[in-house]
Amino acid sequence: MKLQRILPMLEWARVYDKPTFTSDLVAAAIVTIMLIPQSLAYALLAGLPAEVGLYASILPLVAYTLFGSSRTLAVGPVAVVSLMTAAAVGNLALQGTAEYLAAAIALAFLSGVILILMGIFRLGMLANFLSHPVISGFITASGIIIAASQLKHLLGVNASGHNLYQILFSLSSQLDNLNWPTLIIGISATGFLFWTRKQLKPLLIRSGLSRRTADILTKAGPVFMVVATTLVTWGGDLQNSGVKVVGSIPQGLPGLSLPSFNPEVWEQLLVSALLISVVGFVESVSVAQTLAAKRRQRISPDQELIGLGSANIASSISGGFPVTGGFSRSVVNFDAGAATPAAGAFTALGIAIATLLLTPLLFFLPQATLAATIIVAVLSLVDLAALKRTWQYSRSDFSAMLATLLLTLAEGVEIGIVAGVGLSILLYLYRTSKPHSAIVGRVPGTEHFRNIDRHEVETDASLLTLRVDESLYFANARYLEDLVYDLVARNPRVKHLILMCPAVNLIDASALESLEAINQRLQDSGVCLHLSEVKGPVMDQLQRSQFLVALSGQVFLSQFDAWNQLRQPTTQTQVTAIVD
Amino acid sequence: MKLQRILPMLEWARVYDKPTFTSDLVAAAIVTIMLIPQSLAYALLAGLPAEVGLYASILPLVAYTLFGSSRTLAVGPVAVVSLMTAAAVGNLALQGTAEYLAAAIALAFLSGVILILMGIFRLGMLANFLSHPVISGFITASGIIIAASQLKHLLGVNASGHNLYQILFSLSSQLDNLNWPTLIIGISATGFLFWTRKQLKPLLIRSGLSRRTADILTKAGPVFMVVATTLVTWGGDLQNSGVKVVGSIPQGLPGLSLPSFNPEVWEQLLVSALLISVVGFVESVSVAQTLAAKRRQRISPDQELIGLGSANIASSISGGFPVTGGFSRSVVNFDAGAATPAAGAFTALGIAIATLLLTPLLFFLPQATLAATIIVAVLSLVDLAALKRTWQYSRSDFSAMLATLLLTLAEGVEIGIVAGVGLSILLYLYRTSKPHSAIVGRVPGTEHFRNIDRHEVETDASLLTLRVDESLYFANARYLEDLVYDLVARNPRVKHLILMCPAVNLIDASALESLEAINQRLQDSGVCLHLSEVKGPVMDQLQRSQFLVALSGQVFLSQFDAWNQLRQPTTQTQVTAIVD
Repeated sequence: MKLQRILPMLEWARVYDKPTFTSDLVAAAIVTIMLIPQSLAYALLAGLPAEVGLYASILPLVAYTLFGSSRTLAVGPVAVVSLMTAAAVGNLALQGTAEYLAAAIALAFLSGVILILMGIFRLGMLANFLSHPVISGFITASGIIIAASQLKHLLGVNASGHNLYQILFSLSSQLDNLNWPTLIIGISATGFLFWTRKQLKPLLIRSGLSRRTADILTKAGPVFMVVATTLVTWGGDLQNSGVKVVGSIPQGLPGLSLPSFNPEVWEQLLVSALLISVVGFVESVSVAQTLAAKRRQRISPDQELIGLGSANIASSISGGFPVTGGFSRSVVNFDAGAATPAAGAFTALGIAIATLLLTPLLFFLPQATLAATIIVAVLSLVDLAALKRTWQYSRSDFSAMLATLLLTLAEGVEIGIVAGVGLSILLYLYRTSKPHSAIVGRVPGTEHFRNIDRHEVETDASLLTLRVDESLYFANARYLEDLVYDLVARNPRVKHLILMCPAVNLIDASALESLEAINQRLQDSGVCLHLSEVKGPVMDQLQRSQFLVALSGQVFLSQFDAWNQLRQPTTQTQVTAIVD
Repeated sequence: MKLQRILPMLEWARVYDKPTFTSDLVAAAIVTIMLIPQSLAYALLAGLPAEVGLYASILPLVAYTLFGSSRTLAVGPVAVVSLMTAAAVGNLALQGTAEYLAAAIALAFLSGVILILMGIFRLGMLANFLSHPVISGFITASGIIIAASQLKHLLGVNASGHNLYQILFSLSSQLDNLNWPTLIIGISATGFLFWTRKQLKPLLIRSGLSRRTADILTKAGPVFMVVATTLVTWGGDLQNSGVKVVGSIPQGLPGLSLPSFNPEVWEQLLVSALLISVVGFVESVSVAQTLAAKRRQRISPDQELIGLGSANIASSISGGFPVTGGFSRSVVNFDAGAATPAAGAFTALGIAIATLLLTPLLFFLPQATLAATIIVAVLSLVDLAALKRTWQYSRSDFSAMLATLLLTLAEGVEIGIVAGVGLSILLYLYRTSKPHSAIVGRVPGTEHFRNIDRHEVETDASLLTLRVDESLYFANARYLEDLVYDLVARNPRVKHLILMCPAVNLIDASALESLEAINQRLQDSGVCLHLSEVKGPVMDQLQRSQFLVALSGQVFLSQFDAWNQLRQPTTQTQVTAIVD
């Protein structure tokens, strides 16, 4: 049982049969065809030689098959992580140098170690600090940056930069060197891909094909385009007219070796590796959860950390760069009928065969075609409508989203994501530091108490009930003191102040000191402090302090009990006796 | 009215009369006598010439009299802020140089500007992020560091350092150079001060003096010691035996000038100035609040920021260093009967006269005497018992306190306080990321619902009520999903899941997406999702989203309504109709 927790494959491998094998094989074939150009493209996006993308699509898939908990996640190079790799490694070395490649390999290794450690220590919850608005803003901005960074391949010029301004400025200075054949290939490829995405499928269905066949033909669109543009470039000898091609890719499988250990480089890569790990994990786990939910399966986030971590280490020792679960290829894998992670292993086999046999055929593949693949893929990630939806729901979430988006565009991916996380934490703390509170009264004829400003309720002049809608902790402890003192000053007839605590989930040491001060001060002014509806765990904690001994009033199980006891004159006397 | 808000003195100056004047004058005389040695001592603690302490005790007091909101706060150099000044300025220049003094003056100016800006933008709430345990750990550690740093003056050796290890290491290497006359003066002075503090007052009362006279005589202890050790040093010509004395202090009032503007230095001091501002403000405002509460007065934290900010700017333009409200001198001021801030202005006058006339008398005052004053004052700040109290109440608060204490001792004041604040925020977020939750049932015969594990309650097999005791936001959104899915999986007979929300004070955009996912998934499994006791502001926000339209069940005002409607078979049909 314990081994099965570490190796989730033991669960599905026991019942593996022929129909499952066939499903997995078909899915693997489709994903392999899709993954070849994607792998090359994302390697170029990361500033690495094209073959590195293929290397990152073999062993990592095998590792994930062994250790991952999702049945349908397809692992490999993805757009956002490739962009983050380029940003991280670009700080340390020049593109095209051996140091650049070594740093990318080291980054994958570090990221793998971090993910596995997070898995062992069950720190998957760290990913929770990336709120939805921050992720959404970050992904949209990354999509825009990636699309912009690929424009140079469409235009056939040299340009560089890690943020939108740098990229656009660099591009605009190069417009004179525009290469027309490249531009024609690039624009046609992009247009064709958008067309297959939006209009080919309905067209095929209308022309009488089955929905499934139409689907497969539509998915094959990119492959058709790869073949077509490669043939055109080869036939027209276009690389002599300035069309950049993928060129010669070393044939054969990558050698295995540990990444070279350079303490200085590793130290500089550490923060980037952490960011890549967390972002990659969040992206991957949300895809995996969505797909698992569709088939009533469960994934284990902590096991996913182990799975993705081992995939990254596998990538590193086989000369690859950071990988994670990709959205589009996982959906294709799922739709094509993949039933178990074995589909991933078969895909790895497919890519390995391609690496051994097909690489000479890729010589004439134009880089503009790969750029078109990337642009069409990432523009589907751009979701500006989310800004509007979030604005309507919450100004605070909207500002975190907008800040992440703008800072990622202006300052690059690392600053963008860190600022987004920091801002969402600060906004949350700010919000809880001035909590909502209400004076409540009894909804007539019930035992239920609601806000006097929103409902028709009964009140009592000598009895004031304050409901504070927040845990009491350091950020709002002083606010609570001010609130209570003001309230008592404005209601001189009040004899009993009840703090109604159904929403108080925590009273920390700072708030405890404030409550002690409030109790003392109200007692001095002849007002009795009571608590009602204190939660069990909070009560347990209060009992470990001196507060309940010093409390001038009582603690009531329900607000209705407090109302009944404190409202009647006879009971009031009794309570006063307790105070003395 | 508006001018009065900016100048609180207009309020009390209107009704100022002769008895108030007399009270203020008496208090001022006592505080002046206490403040002279303290000012000199804290200037030396900050690594500055002794007269700078006097300068920081004249104009700042006048500025606070004009702009401060506390009636009894006594402003001037204090121990912790002086230590922080030494740490901040010590990074930039060598003690004794003109650059060191200029940087300390610039620090006061920056700190004043920051405080005033915080006051204008009503950012007094920033101080809330210093939780009680963090402040307590920080003050205790600072007290220990300050006491250790003064040992060199008691021993008559040279030593330095900004953390406990550096100071003790530096001291131990100097023990051979011990100066015996200094040691004798230092030990006697320290012993005498401890004795007056603990035993002199009861002794005087037993010998027949009135409580008030005994009190004043006890407070005069330090002055007696200053006079006695100065006379001994002068009479015995001890400065020729190696006893270090205060020496010649420039006679006359400081000139007024703006601090020299050096952008590089200012930039490096900015973070230190922010920390000093926040720590100084917290220390000062808690003293002011305690004293105000005793006389049923109120202080305004935002106005305090303006008052302390103007005091620091006044200090800076008159050649002084950062100041704030001091604990011991404010208590003395209060006990001596100060009625209005005018007492501060009179104290300033007293110090000004002393600066003009008395400085030659201070020539033979031994530095060991000043060190003894500091040691006795700061050791009263050390509160190790707080560690035990906090451990009993909350492990989480305890760890923040201990970390602040140890890091301040080991790494110095700035790292200590920043790490303490960061840790308390992280611990709070961690805690809310795995919120307490309970399945609740009805307390028989009431409309009240409590935890089934803690109370005898009624439940219904088709009805599950989950009360989550926390706001739903990004840090716990995924946790909530897991919680609900597990619960439904473990209770296959359940038809209705009620999320009871009296403790949910916020549902942010991330949690909204999780709720939408939960609703969809429960609906797919034939379980209806309901909400009960949703707070007004949360409901307002939900109405701005599509969630209430998609919700498979209803939103009930009270949990009792939900229980009544959903429990009966007849009503259940009705609810199912709503689902369809």
